[in-house]
Amino acid sequence: MSTVRTPPVVAALDIGGTKTAAAIVTRDGEVTDRLTAATPGRAGATAILDTAADLVERLRSRATGVRVGALGVGSAGVIDHRTGLVLSATDALAGWAGTDLRGRLRERLGVPVHVINDVHAHALGEARHGVAAGHETVLFIAVGTGVGASFVVDGAVLTGAHSTAGHAGHQPSPYAGQMPCTCGGQGHLEAIASGPALTEEYVRRTGQRVDDLRAVAARAADGDATAREVVLLGGAAVGSAVGGLVNMLDPGAVVIGGGVTGLGDPWWQALRDAVRRETLPTLGDVPVLASTLGADAPLLGAATLAWTDMS
Amino acid sequence: MSTVRTPPVVAALDIGGTKTAAAIVTRDGEVTDRLTAATPGRAGATAILDTAADLVERLRSRATGVRVGALGVGSAGVIDHRTGLVLSATDALAGWAGTDLRGRLRERLGVPVHVINDVHAHALGEARHGVAAGHETVLFIAVGTGVGASFVVDGAVLTGAHSTAGHAGHQPSPYAGQMPCTCGGQGHLEAIASGPALTEEYVRRTGQRVDDLRAVAARAADGDATAREVVLLGGAAVGSAVGGLVNMLDPGAVVIGGGVTGLGDPWWQALRDAVRRETLPTLGDVPVLASTLGADAPLLGAATLAWTDMS
Repeated sequence: MSTVRTPPVVAALDIGGTKTAAAIVTRDGEVTDRLTAATPGRAGATAILDTAADLVERLRSRATGVRVGALGVGSAGVIDHRTGLVLSATDALAGWAGTDLRGRLRERLGVPVHVINDVHAHALGEARHGVAAGHETVLFIAVGTGVGASFVVDGAVLTGAHSTAGHAGHQPSPYAGQMPCTCGGQGHLEAIASGPALTEEYVRRTGQRVDDLRAVAARAADGDATAREVVLLGGAAVGSAVGGLVNMLDPGAVVIGGGVTGLGDPWWQALRDAVRRETLPTLGDVPVLASTLGADAPLLGAATLAWTDMS
Repeated sequence: MSTVRTPPVVAALDIGGTKTAAAIVTRDGEVTDRLTAATPGRAGATAILDTAADLVERLRSRATGVRVGALGVGSAGVIDHRTGLVLSATDALAGWAGTDLRGRLRERLGVPVHVINDVHAHALGEARHGVAAGHETVLFIAVGTGVGASFVVDGAVLTGAHSTAGHAGHQPSPYAGQMPCTCGGQGHLEAIASGPALTEEYVRRTGQRVDDLRAVAARAADGDATAREVVLLGGAAVGSAVGGLVNMLDPGAVVIGGGVTGLGDPWWQALRDAVRRETLPTLGDVPVLASTLGADAPLLGAATLAWTDMS
């Protein structure tokens, strides 16, 4: 059997603070196999890399009749896609900053490796294979523990001069007042619209303890007026910022993802209403879409990068 | 004399609401000749085109020993650079919307023509030949009668899916409260930070009539505390928005232009302080620069486009 005739596929990794996912992906963006493992985030870079590489090796060993020609990686942290280095990372990934992510995985796995931030990978997945496929420019916003973003221009992710593009959560928001932000600043979108921020806002307004945003959502569904107000506030704050970015960037489509989107219809309606209030009349029809690829999005985006290395 | 050996140059036009400028520009971005005329903004599209074409013909007729091979045009209004059409324009240019700007100038002048919005042309000029030369990504903000912007990525202007990218003035600003904006919305940056908005803010605070922003600036320089507060407010509002955009776009450099920059050091200091307050720690060193090419910037940017047609 000649290996030359073996159909090529790529492998993809999504290295997050709690979970690492790996997949085998075809050129058309089909995931043909996948594995996940807990990220050993406290155990240091080598343990994280070992876990990730092991997933890819296991997928490769059982991928019969195909050849894994390259690897694409989306990772939490600020990733320099040009050098393949992790420039900085949250405390959830101990020792991750400074890691030669590309070099060490290439050495370990023997294939070309492309690396990028996981939010950027998610945006690329939706822009190429997801709900925004066909649009040349896509603004992706992820609303979860933080508020991140990625801007895809002509099919490529804007990574920025310092590889930090996409920090949409750190824009001034009229909804945030002087609230302290995780970045050390204040009054930013993330300080009012992230999952933890909305939960805290509910606690502040009611004096009642709740475990997390899911509890706030449940109360809103049960008719708790304050919980509902907080949900609507969150949607409006995100929508206001999105509307401003639409006016600045004029994307073909906006895609919204992240755990906070699980707040459902009232949150989405408040978001869409706020987008329409902010946008210029000529931009009122820009589609604001829900991310549909879910956990596959960063894998498909990372795979897209890997395919650039394939003949 | 063989025309084949005649050194090529390009012509550039900057068609504004009050003035039309034309220039002959070398490949290195040197303006070797120029002419200006009042824009007959109330007389309709044909009159505007005649004035512009006439300037180019006069420059061409006296450009001895060189050959004008192409024309680049920066124009007020929303310009579709792909079709060459004016999509919309302010009342200052009557009948401009709908004009086949590229087609009619090409027919009249017999050279390839590239057209783009004038703010985008300005940004391109600064990014290629001005204060931001050498940076791959440049965020340009123009603060004048309105607040416009342009984002240059890898040497090309982001025009957007509807050719309207760059409306940075229509972002929500915590400094603008519920103030009505020229776009029909409210609370936008332009509603507090443009020249007319700052003038109006001074009038609102003092109850005193002033002619324009120059008068406010003069009063600030003379020790009028309220005038000074308004100047600082304007700088801070722009800086806050710029800081948010820096976090989102991670440009190599920011360039600020437009008439309001004439407010001088206090305005600039308030702007730079606000940028630093908003930006992430890793982005605190992004240079915030004053536009230096002045009226030549849109001409040089338009010329850059024209050169893409030249061998």
